[in-house]
Formats: sequence, C-alpha cells, structure tokens
Amino acid sequence: MLQFQCDYSEGAHPRILQALCDTNFEQTPGYGEDIYCQRASELICQKCNAPRASVHFLVGGTQANFILLAAALRPHQGAVCAQSGHINVHESGAVEACGHKVLPLPSTDGKIYAQQVKDYVTAHWQDPTHEHMVQPKLVYISNPTEVGTIYTKAELTALYSVCQENGLYLYIDGARLGFALTCRENDLTLSDIASLCDAFTIGGTKAGALFGEALVIQNHALKQDFRYILKQKGGMLAKGRLLGLQFLTLLGDDLYFALCRHGNEMARKIRQSCEQNNIPLLFDSPTNQQFPILANQDLARLSQQFAYSYWQAVDESHTAVRFCTSWATTPENTQALCSALLAL
Amino acid sequence: MLQFQCDYSEGAHPRILQALCDTNFEQTPGYGEDIYCQRASELICQKCNAPRASVHFLVGGTQANFILLAAALRPHQGAVCAQSGHINVHESGAVEACGHKVLPLPSTDGKIYAQQVKDYVTAHWQDPTHEHMVQPKLVYISNPTEVGTIYTKAELTALYSVCQENGLYLYIDGARLGFALTCRENDLTLSDIASLCDAFTIGGTKAGALFGEALVIQNHALKQDFRYILKQKGGMLAKGRLLGLQFLTLLGDDLYFALCRHGNEMARKIRQSCEQNNIPLLFDSPTNQQFPILANQDLARLSQQFAYSYWQAVDESHTAVRFCTSWATTPENTQALCSALLAL
Amino acid sequence: MLQFQCDYSEGAHPRILQALCDTNFEQTPGYGEDIYCQRASELICQKCNAPRASVHFLVGGTQANFILLAAALRPHQGAVCAQSGHINVHESGAVEACGHKVLPLPSTDGKIYAQQVKDYVTAHWQDPTHEHMVQPKLVYISNPTEVGTIYTKAELTALYSVCQENGLYLYIDGARLGFALTCRENDLTLSDIASLCDAFTIGGTKAGALFGEALVIQNHALKQDFRYILKQKGGMLAKGRLLGLQFLTLLGDDLYFALCRHGNEMARKIRQSCEQNNIPLLFDSPTNQQFPILANQDLARLSQQFAYSYWQAVDESHTAVRFCTSWATTPENTQALCSALLAL
Amino acid sequence: MLQFQCDYSEGAHPRILQALCDTNFEQTPGYGEDIYCQRASELICQKCNAPRASVHFLVGGTQANFILLAAALRPHQGAVCAQSGHINVHESGAVEACGHKVLPLPSTDGKIYAQQVKDYVTAHWQDPTHEHMVQPKLVYISNPTEVGTIYTKAELTALYSVCQENGLYLYIDGARLGFALTCRENDLTLSDIASLCDAFTIGGTKAGALFGEALVIQNHALKQDFRYILKQKGGMLAKGRLLGLQFLTLLGDDLYFALCRHGNEMARKIRQSCEQNNIPLLFDSPTNQQFPILANQDLARLSQQFAYSYWQAVDESHTAVRFCTSWATTPENTQALCSALLAL
Repeated sequence: MLQFQCDYSEGAHPRILQALCDTNFEQTPGYGEDIYCQRASELICQKCNAPRASVHFLVGGTQANFILLAAALRPHQGAVCAQSGHINVHESGAVEACGHKVLPLPSTDGKIYAQQVKDYVTAHWQDPTHEHMVQPKLVYISNPTEVGTIYTKAELTALYSVCQENGLYLYIDGARLGFALTCRENDLTLSDIASLCDAFTIGGTKAGALFGEALVIQNHALKQDFRYILKQKGGMLAKGRLLGLQFLTLLGDDLYFALCRHGNEMARKIRQSCEQNNIPLLFDSPTNQQFPILANQDLARLSQQFAYSYWQAVDESHTAVRFCTSWATTPENTQALCSALLAL
Repeated sequence: MLQFQCDYSEGAHPRILQALCDTNFEQTPGYGEDIYCQRASELICQKCNAPRASVHFLVGGTQANFILLAAALRPHQGAVCAQSGHINVHESGAVEACGHKVLPLPSTDGKIYAQQVKDYVTAHWQDPTHEHMVQPKLVYISNPTEVGTIYTKAELTALYSVCQENGLYLYIDGARLGFALTCRENDLTLSDIASLCDAFTIGGTKAGALFGEALVIQNHALKQDFRYILKQKGGMLAKGRLLGLQFLTLLGDDLYFALCRHGNEMARKIRQSCEQNNIPLLFDSPTNQQFPILANQDLARLSQQFAYSYWQAVDESHTAVRFCTSWATTPENTQALCSALLAL
Repeated sequence: MLQFQCDYSEGAHPRILQALCDTNFEQTPGYGEDIYCQRASELICQKCNAPRASVHFLVGGTQANFILLAAALRPHQGAVCAQSGHINVHESGAVEACGHKVLPLPSTDGKIYAQQVKDYVTAHWQDPTHEHMVQPKLVYISNPTEVGTIYTKAELTALYSVCQENGLYLYIDGARLGFALTCRENDLTLSDIASLCDAFTIGGTKAGALFGEALVIQNHALKQDFRYILKQKGGMLAKGRLLGLQFLTLLGDDLYFALCRHGNEMARKIRQSCEQNNIPLLFDSPTNQQFPILANQDLARLSQQFAYSYWQAVDESHTAVRFCTSWATTPENTQALCSALLAL
Repeated sequence: MLQFQCDYSEGAHPRILQALCDTNFEQTPGYGEDIYCQRASELICQKCNAPRASVHFLVGGTQANFILLAAALRPHQGAVCAQSGHINVHESGAVEACGHKVLPLPSTDGKIYAQQVKDYVTAHWQDPTHEHMVQPKLVYISNPTEVGTIYTKAELTALYSVCQENGLYLYIDGARLGFALTCRENDLTLSDIASLCDAFTIGGTKAGALFGEALVIQNHALKQDFRYILKQKGGMLAKGRLLGLQFLTLLGDDLYFALCRHGNEMARKIRQSCEQNNIPLLFDSPTNQQFPILANQDLARLSQQFAYSYWQAVDESHTAVRFCTSWATTPENTQALCSALLAL
C-alpha cells in the first residue's frame, strides 16, 4: 500500500534524529529557555528579517492557533476566516473553547480577500446593533490553504492593508508554509510573510520535523505575557530543547525549503498526470495537496494500491479525493501513482 | 413619533405593576425560593401538561439561552441552529463565551427542518475525522423565529423525532412564544410545545412583563444542578419574587395569550395594508413582526412619523424594514401606520 | 416571624414603585440607551465628582462582578481578594467560569491590606517560575465587606497606591456600599470611593431598589467595548429604563443614603443590645450585618420568633449567626429583637 | 556545574531514541491511531490489570491534567486538591481557563486525606447556600506529591472510598508515578493504583521519555468522546506513533521502573548524607526530590558547583532548596553532591 493520505505519516528527516541523538545527554533548562531554542529563535528572526519578532516553539498546529488567538482577543472579539478554515472546521471547536466565535466568510478556493474582509468589518460597525454581535478583531488565513491554494504577494499586501486600516490583526497559519513558499507559482519570501502579518507559524510537523510549529509574533501588542498563556494552554514543552533543535536543524541550511520543494515536485507530477489524462481537479493547487475528481469505479481500483483521503462527493458517480505528498514521498511511489492515474 | 421599532419599549401590563405594589412589603426568601415562584412554576407545569417539568425564572432571553446551553453541553459539543438564529447573530457570542460552537444551517425563512438536521448529524458521524469537528448535540430553534415565521405541529414533531433518534436535545427559544401560539395560522398548543422539545422558554419581556423568561425543562438529564449554573452565570435574581409574581399574573387567567393575540392582530392589520397596496413582504410572518420592502423614498417619508427597524437593503432603491407590534401597541397608532402604508 | 435573615426580602421603596408606574407607558429605546439611564449616569458622575466615568446599570451583583472582571483580565490573569470575598465563596465559580483564577489572601476581618497585596505581588514577580503561575492583575474588595466591616480612607488610599504602583486594577464591590458610607465610623465619601479605585459598584438591590447595581468605571482602559461584554454575559437589560429610573429615584435627593443610614441605625441597636448583655460579636461591624455568638440553647429560643442566618459554629455549645437589617426593617421589629437579646 | 535542578534536563533513554530511529520511515496513521499506540495501550491495560481501561497518550502533564478535568466536570463543578497541588499552583490557571475552580485544602506534606475530603464535601452539602458555591466533584492528588511524599495503600484506599461514597471522581497525577512505585517505602503496585482511582497518568517526561504522559481512564463515565476534547485542547499529537512507541519501550520490560528506581536510589544517598550531617529536611520524601534546609552561607558555597531549585526561606539565615535526581543522574555526580553535603 503506497501512502498519499497525509503529510505526517513518517517520522523526521534523519538529520533531525541525528541532532537529537547527538545532544541527548546535554543538560539544558526546561520550558524553552535553552540555548537551542534561543539559537533557533535568532535564526528565524534573521531569516524573516524581523529582528524584533518574538518566537515561540509549540508542539502542534491546533495548539498554536488557539493559543495565539486566546492571547490576542478580548472576550467579545472573534476571528474572521474562510468557511473552510482549519479553525472553523477541523479543530473540534478549539477557538470557541477559548471563548471566541469564529466568523466564517464564504470561499470557494480556501482563500479570503481584502474586499471581503473590508465589507464584513464595515457592515459590523455600521450595524446599529453591533454591540449585540461578535466584534471582528483578527483575520485568520492559512498559506497554503487547506485546499492547497496560495496567496500572491499582491493579495496578501491588500489583505494586510485592510486589516491595518480596520484595527484587525492578521494571523497566518503556516502549518504547510514551506510548501507555499517553495512552489513554482509563489512570489512571496519568508521575510515578505513576516512583514505582511502580525503573527504567523512556520510548520515543522509536515516538513521534516517529528513535530513542532514555530510561532513568530511581529506585533508588539501580541507579545506581552505570551509565555503565561503558552503554559496555561498546555503549549510549553518541558524539554523545549527538542523543539529548538529541530528548527535549528531544519532552517540551518534551508533543509526546510529543500524538503518542501521536494514535496511540491512530487505533487506536481501527480497533477500533470491528471491533466494529461483529463482528470479534473477540484482546486487549483500548486502545492503538495492535489484534489482530483475521479469516477467512483476508478477510485475503487486505485484504492487497492494507494491510500488517499476522501474529500467530497461531486456527483453520483464521481468523488473528489486528496493525494498528499510530503518531504518523505519517494519518486518511485509518485511514479507508481502517476502511472496508475494515466492508466485510468 | 409612533413606535413600531421593537416589542419592549413600554413597561408592564398594569396588572403586573399592581401585583408588584400589592406584595411589595411581603418578606420572602430570595433567589427564586419564594411562594410566588413556586406557584408560578406549578401553574406553568399545569398549563403545559408537564407535571414533572423544572421551571426556572430568568431576567432575560440571552441569559436563558446560554445558561441552558451551558448546562446541556459538554466542551466538545455545539448547538445547531438556523444561520439567522438569535444565538448565532445577536447575542455577542454568548454561547461561544461558554465554550461552545454554534453550528449554523442555511435558512431563508428563519426555520430549520428535520431533514436538514438529520443530514447534518449523519454527515458528522460518517466523517472519518469527526473527532476533529464539533459534535452536534443540541438543536436551537425559536418559535416564532427571528423573522416572525412559525413552526407547524407537523414540522416540530418531525424535528423532535430526528433529535430523539440522533441523541440531540431540542431547545425552543420562546422569547415571543405567545405570539406564535396565538396567531391565526398556529396549530400548536402550549402543551404541544412542552411535549415536543427538551426545554423551552416562555418569554415575558415582550409580552406584558417588565422582564422575565420562564425556562421549562422537560428532559430530566438537563435538570440536575441547574440552579448552580443559574447562579454562576448571573441568572439568579435576588428578589426572585418579582419574576414568579409576573408569570403568575400573566398566566393566571391567560392574560399572556390575550396580550400576544392583540399584538398579532395589530400586526395583521399592517400586513393587510401592505398586501392591499402591493407592498411586498420579505418574510411570510403571521406574528407581530412584519417586514415590508419599501422604496427608499417612501421610507424617508414614513420615518418622519413612524419608528421602525432597518432590516436589509434589497436593491439600490428598496429596503426591507421591520415594523413590530406588542401587547401595548394601540389600535390608533396601528391605524395611523396602515393609512400611511396605503397612501404610499 | 420577624425577618433578619437578609437585606433583600422586601421589594422596593414606594417612591421607586411610583416612578415605575408613572413612566410605565413611555416608549423608550432598549438596552440602557434611554433617557433615564442617561440622566442617572450623569447624576452618578456628578455625585462621584467623576465627570469622565462610564456608568453601566446591571441587574445583579454577581453579574456586575464577573462582567467587570471578564472585561479587565487577560486569560492568564487573576483577581486577588480576601479568602472570604464574595467572588471566592458565594458566586458558584462565576469568575472561574470566565476563565480566571481567584487568588485568595488570608483575612480575619473580611478585609485585605496594602501590605498583603504588595507582598503577594512582589512574591509573584520574584518567583523564577512566575510564568507558571496566575498573574495577579486585579484586586477585588467589598466595602462593607461580607462580614460588615469597612475600609478607612487611609486603608483604601494605601491599597490603591499599592495597586497603582504594581499595575493592578482595584475594584470595589459595593453591593452594600450605602451602608458603608453612612455608618458612624465611616470617613469615606462617594467621591473618595470614585477616586480611590478603577471601578466600583453602587448596589441598589439591598438599598431600596427592586434590583440593580450601578457599575462606575473610572479607569479608561476598562471602558472600551464594555457594552459588548455586558450583552454577551447577559447583563444588558432589554428595558434598561427600569434600572436608570431606579437609580435616578434613589440618588435624586439622597434617598439612597437615608435608607442605608436607617438600616445601620437598626443594626446599631442590635449591636448595643448584644454588648449590653455581654454577647460577643464575631466581627466588629459598624454596618447593617451583626454577628453575635450565642449559646445554642438561646438560639433555639430566638429562632421561634426571629429569622436569621447561620454563620459558623464557634464551639460545641455556641454558634455565630447573622442578623441583617435593611432599609425596610422597622423600629418595632428591631426593638423586639433587642428585647429578646437583652432577655437571654 | 552538576545539575540537580529538575528531572527533565536530559533527553531520553537511549533505547527510546533507538526505537524512534528504527521506525522513522514507517508510515502510520496519525493522531494516536497507529499500531504502536494500540500496543502500548494494551500493554498498559495488562500491566494495570485493567482490561477495560481507556488509554490516551499526551505530550505533557499540564495538558493531561486540564483535559481530564475538562472532560470530567460540568460548569459548576470544581476539583479539590492540596493547597500545594500542581493544578493549584504551577499550571498558570489551566483548570480555571477551562472554567473550573480549584478547591484547595490545607496540607503540610503535599497530601490530602480521606477525612479532609469527607469533611469538605459534607460541609458543602450541608450549607443551605450550597448552590451559590462551587460543587466539589473531583479530587486531584499527585503521587508522589509535589514535595516527594507518597500515599500508602491504606491512605489511598480510604480516600477512594470517600470519593465513591460521595460521588466524587479521584484522579491521580502520576507525572512522577514511577518514583512513587519504586521507592522503598511504597506499598502500592501499578494495578493497585489502577483500581483505586477513576483516572491517572503514568508520566514519561520525567522517567526516560523525550516527553509523554499516558492517561489511563478507568471510570466508564469519563471515557465518552474523550478524543474530541483531546483534539480541542491541543492534546492530540499528529504523529501519535512517537508517544505509543516511547511507552511501549519504557514499559516493555519494565525499563520504566528500573529508571525510576535508579533516581530514587540517587536521592536516597543525598538524603542519607543530609541525615548523617544533621541537615534537616523540609519534607519526609522517599522519592527523587529532597528538600534540605541549609544555612545560606553553605548554600552560597554549594551553588558554585551544584544547580538546585530554590524552595522557600525558612528563617533569616536558612533556606530550603530542592535537589532532584532522575533516571539520568550519575552515581558520580551524586557522590560529589553527597561529599559536599557531608563537608558542610
């Protein structure tokens, strides 16, 4: 069975395991106050061209999202996002469990746009009963989105301008950020990202780490007392060294980007096979997730050899599924899938 | 200026004020444990044909909604409702502030239907990642809805069946319940309501009381320790007598229903005037809220004499507004409005 | 049976009922935006010598406490108070339900002192693991306290200084504020109160109103968006007029102070009778709550004629109880109690 | 500098790292649904003699505590624990952030006893205003406690009886459970633990794992829908395999107990040196944490060579500190510390 079900089925890149073994008996202070976290933080600031950013290392993405939001919002404030946003759909109500409403905007491509946000916020403030409604205060986007699409520099710039003009924070969930920044269609750099939002994550779990998300906070207003909330919400790892070391290894010589680029290239081959064989794609994704729409009987055949994720029924006889590649997807397995897709 | 803006602009029916004055110097225990609360509770049980119901008296409707939901739901559970549901739109995120996601379903008439709920719940449990999503556990409806429409007995029966088959609670927000039960199109009785849901409110604020909602809990699972949560959330009035006495007065000889019927009849005249003059109505409401769509220039004229609520823009030159009647709306004022509508 | 059990067993002062009746059919905007709330707010600002204060009217005291705290605190912050503080003991965990820890300090007289707060806060910041602990951010006191004691001007001044020096808010729960300000031992004025804290309440429920607490916010940082949170937590009364009107009546010609002074004088007589008959008092209370320690057999006899509250067992044969007077306690009933106490 | 500051300064036992490396490229399902989690779960059930227990693997201890409590408690319920309990002091208000009050009982040795709990619960239910107070519903203890002390089988049996008789859950925080179960004074087995509470954790972080706590739920009422809440609160690790594998390795041939026994033996030597040199100990701890009370000038000297944790000032010239050993503490370092203590 060849796995294309998700991008977290293997462990870590061997250099990460090596680094963990090499430093295993070093005695370091706990809770992220060790030298590796410090160095990884400095390295991230440098690569982001963001010398004053605060960097925190968390184990998981859901955790990073709700902790940042809990730190940013007052009780009556909510987070605007795409209907399909991870915080709206797949985090079991984590944001609401912190007391905040998620305010979904319609989206067909997983993205939300500057004008949408502007209209929504304007409508809120113009409504004479706005005090009876949740106040939009933060915009959550993911890049790439949950459906593999990416933001252009122009789109992100416009979105951040609207946020700034309207007193909204912009937060980017970068669980798969490396895939966005290394795909061929991308025109954003890591330092663009850092300058076009108030906070964002660099996801490690899906990009070669055992686990870990680096949360980069640019806006000073979001930094204060952050570690208290990190601890309170279970986000402060006792052996913080494990996180710092992984990000130091990943970002040290751009291993991170190489790994994500590889995942994208594998996905590109899958996409090309689909296009070549006139298999429609549900989303126009340039990154490591591809969503072909397949005849149910073809799917039945494919599923004997390949693991994928169900996405949604398209019509009675067709279903959209997700094939996901990662840093660990081999060219051989990819080739096998491509051949199978071409043979349908 | 004649007020049709809302149904809570006056105080209370004179008999309520009289009852408050008559009993003012009686010394009663606090926190709803007085004889008036007890009698009102018994009276409600009797009128609902629900001898084992628990009745609690709360000051306001938002309070009643979030307290019931907080008592009913575990942390990962949410409340399904219409997109336009009061808890989804106009309670400043009160439900989310208690930790629970509101799960909106599309609705054009303010109602949700059995099949919708069934489909939603089925989809949840069939999704292999349902543990990553908020679990639907309670269905919230309002009757009449926020747009004045009402549920038929058949609809409510079907909805409650789906709820029971799927382990969902059904809760009816009856902030304007009297208006639903006394309109001409209604086929539900108070005891139907009580037998077709797990909990519901009988709203006093909009039906002749100074304030107050009676929360009737039928499902035994929702009764336990309810008063702790009532206290915790600020819903336990020190001088509980004020609430018990108001409901005793309102329901004692069906004053409640008489007051609501009056409001409906006033609204009916407004509706008839609209229909007579070919003014379209945004919703098909048989209750005390009417939503005519008017030319903006006509509205400008009307607004010199009548107060109403803005509802939504319909097109560039037309706007839907809300005219709201109450127990206190006079026939004279209603006639004045009707004449004005007919003269447009 | 003569009631000395609590100070909320009757309704309202007749002038309040009269005012409600007089204005019953006036049509006013809802949710506290009516002319009576506005006038009452202006009157309070004037009497507090606090022209820039924000005033909000809430139905109950628990509500006022947790809403103010929810508005003031970030997720990792807590409220310091006396072990016996109402928010720590008798609000069913309302503050914790908003996500915040109550941080109790030892107290034998219901009060906490500047030095205690200073020591506690200093210890927090000096602890190398303070990020693992709840950060003290607000000091909650009640005046009079839950056991009837009062703060002197010197004590309150010292406490507020410590708060200001340490970045803490000081909030005064004034559920019985009138009793503190009108007792013979008091040296604080209403405008002293307003200038020696960040926010406080003027309690109406126990001082002649049907219900109602006026929350006065002095610190600008606590004012922003307060009404959203008021709505979210169920604290925004639809017919806000009822609250504004009551405070306007109470404070209009200092009826409020006259009523509380009366309650204190009644309590003073009870206290004097105890002292005269060598009945020890558990607390040195100059206000409307008195806590005599009585032999259990004496209590058994008293309880045939008088209702009081159990407070605590003192030893095997003695119990402390609470006798509570109010604006409505009559001299006759008080005299009866005094005679009974003297006759023990 | 020799480290005795905490028990999480190193990485993992080499066999754990080896296991991670060996399985690194295996493709497993995410979120704890892999074969290693399944096997580890079965192994734990077997070793606990608890075939029907639910086992969940979490990254950290604070997380495990608040997630279990959030799943167990309704909004008005709280957790009883020792004043010094970790949830009361060192988790930044994590339990309160889930909406629940921590109800501390006085304790001088870190433990709470059956009678204390019984008295507290009885007092709650006897108080006529108990609905105004947080309802005790769960008892939290740690074994060993935060100060190294342990529960005897008789004590735990009595405590659990009281809990069962009073409808309380008993939860044991076993962050250092291995140290309790392997110290010479212990008379409890792992299966005793499992049968004498409703849920408990087996801590890995401080016992040879990189990270990880196994949460064992015995009470069926606590099992339902647990994984939803795990996900919601950030406790569901994407690459769950990492957790399952570590516990499989630790418990596979009782490595876990061997490692903890080693830590205890190192601590025992430190304790013996103190006793031999008449250095008093603040707590009577038979486990891996020792709390000698030292003259400040002696401490100043020790701190040049040894890292320890400050605990509390005892008098003007003496301070209690904590020396902590772990699975990784070497006999050489321990000997060095013992010699230094003997030389004071």
